[in-house]
Amino acid sequence: MSFAELWESLRPIGRDPVTGGYRRFSWTAADLSCRDWFSATAAERGFEVHADGNGNLWAWWETASTGGRAVVCGSHLDSVPDGGAFDGPLGVVSAFAAIDALRDRGFTPAHPVAVAAFTEEEGARFGVACLGSRLLTGAISPGAARGLCDADGVTLADAMTAAGADPARLGPDDELLRRIAAFIELHIEQGRLLADTDAVIGAADGIWPHGRWRFDFHGRADHAGTTALGDRRDAMMPFAATVLAAREAAARHRGLATVGKVVPEPGAVNAIPSMVRAWLDARAHDEGCLEELVAEIRAAADQAAADHGVTVTAACESFSPRVAFDPGLRARLSGVLARNMIRAPGVSTGAGHDAGVLAARVPTAMLFVRNPCGVSHAPAEHAELTDCETGVAALAAVVEEMAARA
Amino acid sequence: MSFAELWESLRPIGRDPVTGGYRRFSWTAADLSCRDWFSATAAERGFEVHADGNGNLWAWWETASTGGRAVVCGSHLDSVPDGGAFDGPLGVVSAFAAIDALRDRGFTPAHPVAVAAFTEEEGARFGVACLGSRLLTGAISPGAARGLCDADGVTLADAMTAAGADPARLGPDDELLRRIAAFIELHIEQGRLLADTDAVIGAADGIWPHGRWRFDFHGRADHAGTTALGDRRDAMMPFAATVLAAREAAARHRGLATVGKVVPEPGAVNAIPSMVRAWLDARAHDEGCLEELVAEIRAAADQAAADHGVTVTAACESFSPRVAFDPGLRARLSGVLARNMIRAPGVSTGAGHDAGVLAARVPTAMLFVRNPCGVSHAPAEHAELTDCETGVAALAAVVEEMAARA
Repeated sequence: MSFAELWESLRPIGRDPVTGGYRRFSWTAADLSCRDWFSATAAERGFEVHADGNGNLWAWWETASTGGRAVVCGSHLDSVPDGGAFDGPLGVVSAFAAIDALRDRGFTPAHPVAVAAFTEEEGARFGVACLGSRLLTGAISPGAARGLCDADGVTLADAMTAAGADPARLGPDDELLRRIAAFIELHIEQGRLLADTDAVIGAADGIWPHGRWRFDFHGRADHAGTTALGDRRDAMMPFAATVLAAREAAARHRGLATVGKVVPEPGAVNAIPSMVRAWLDARAHDEGCLEELVAEIRAAADQAAADHGVTVTAACESFSPRVAFDPGLRARLSGVLARNMIRAPGVSTGAGHDAGVLAARVPTAMLFVRNPCGVSHAPAEHAELTDCETGVAALAAVVEEMAARA
Repeated sequence: MSFAELWESLRPIGRDPVTGGYRRFSWTAADLSCRDWFSATAAERGFEVHADGNGNLWAWWETASTGGRAVVCGSHLDSVPDGGAFDGPLGVVSAFAAIDALRDRGFTPAHPVAVAAFTEEEGARFGVACLGSRLLTGAISPGAARGLCDADGVTLADAMTAAGADPARLGPDDELLRRIAAFIELHIEQGRLLADTDAVIGAADGIWPHGRWRFDFHGRADHAGTTALGDRRDAMMPFAATVLAAREAAARHRGLATVGKVVPEPGAVNAIPSMVRAWLDARAHDEGCLEELVAEIRAAADQAAADHGVTVTAACESFSPRVAFDPGLRARLSGVLARNMIRAPGVSTGAGHDAGVLAARVPTAMLFVRNPCGVSHAPAEHAELTDCETGVAALAAVVEEMAARA
């Protein structure tokens, strides 16, 4: 089946007809429909499908002649709230389409080939990104995962049970991991590096280290209508200065800094805020650079707070070190793509991915497909059909190379 | 009874033992206890008490020799969340204490004297400041008021009914207003003007015009980990720049500008905000000055938004013009205080008060009592006992002057 036909078969599921955005949250009706699509797509090809204990889906292309460890391609099917169509699904659809292309040209694999779709990659429902791959590799304990709650207070365990899955089976699966020779995740680019350098495909060299820091600015609540400017200890002022300083520091370090969440207290229009709590998301090419970036932002926050009689504390709430993808696998991909005349410059990504989590246990790699406007996590997220087809061709070439050799 | 004794009799009601702040929200149990205190205090003095249709309380000192229209003193008993002890209650307690002082020295009024306590002055429960005085004067329709909801969705009508009051009686009361010759509200100062000029008492010349404006910064939601700084339309950036610009503009115009409430969307740590909605509270000495101040802040917001590819709209949500207190009454107060050797410089206040609302219908004046640290709307709000006693003496002198003459 062509990529376009496969893509269209998945596209309507969980799509909001008004915004065009997706709400494919794990273990909801939309997610179960995506899972049905995965199973049906695999079954049409005669592939065995199984869900592992963490709800990750696997479709196996195995024949009488296959043996040894598998080449696995895939990504995830869940979305952020009002997310785009491509982030995740493009990697799953492209994996099936690549296998279709190989079968069409009569390729017979020497090793098993599998398509995988990981659960709750976005963390949109239960708050932990890459939850399915983290559970699979043991990066999060099944007990902690079972107790994670969504916004309505439903636990992961209850949500799985309601969806017919058994939360008692959550946890690492070393046997499954041992069956994998390599995992290759194809993904839409979430920026414009490829578009700006006029390349259709990129090969990831790593994932930037990233983290989130919570800043609490403690001022003093006062009446907005009576407290002279000079008498104020207004927590909003150093917060605002820190937002601007974070952007400047990120530009200096060629990193990224974002403040997407802020909660003032008491939060009344006519009250000077006694407290402003804000979260910084910061990312940079390497850990030294990220450390300097965050240190500069903290120093700016300290200075701005002192200027306004406010105190500030900053606490790291999460940190993910740099992921370097397997150098041998990267070299092999580069060779294959070069032989197939597909230019694929190396790119680093600032976003976490299942491939980054799996990298701790199996050789992994990522391919990116050009995103003309760079928009992601929003309905306008887009990749051109011809670029997606180039992605499928790249993936097919890689699988052909890796599944053919002994 | 001395001021100190009266003050202590009210002080524990609705006080949080941990923070020391007050939660005297209208028609709650704490508010009903304050109302009981008011009634008992009046009854001890043999004053007739009545609640008008809007829940405002009135205690009448009338004798066989009183006639004509009344001199009314008072303020309110409700508080902001975790408010101080003085904002409101000081004016009510001082009014009773001033009458006690006059009775102790054998003064016989020629005109009725009343103490008033207005309902929901802070707007802390139902969102409309000076609700009781606005209803009394017809500045808000009773139908609109009945439908106001608190944070739990309880309407004012339901809250009044639950407290044993009849919401059908809400509305203007011209007959009651006609009985009032003058209303004098004594209030703790909510800034440090008096403290800085070494005066114990101030006489208000007016209330600054003030208003609130809602700014909606519309950007674009993007992935915090992948969107290059230059590709962002981050709504948080112009918001932050506007906060800083508002402070600078307020300083230039000797006005006040405060941003106490901000809500980003989607509000996720790893998402560039598609929208930041923020409220500006702005006040200045006169309306021309306020207009210029807000225009400068809007221009700064427009410029910052344009710099970041963001659009911004600003809408005025409420506006209160300048209140000038009755010049004849102010002159009379000045004369009385001067004769009593009480220095009382003129002050303008940036805060709204029931006296400002009543000024539309009856001659009103305000006296302020020094606040050493200027803090208000917070547990640390404080006035020294001797300063409060000077306030009582000032109020007694004014009432003596005004209730004695024909």
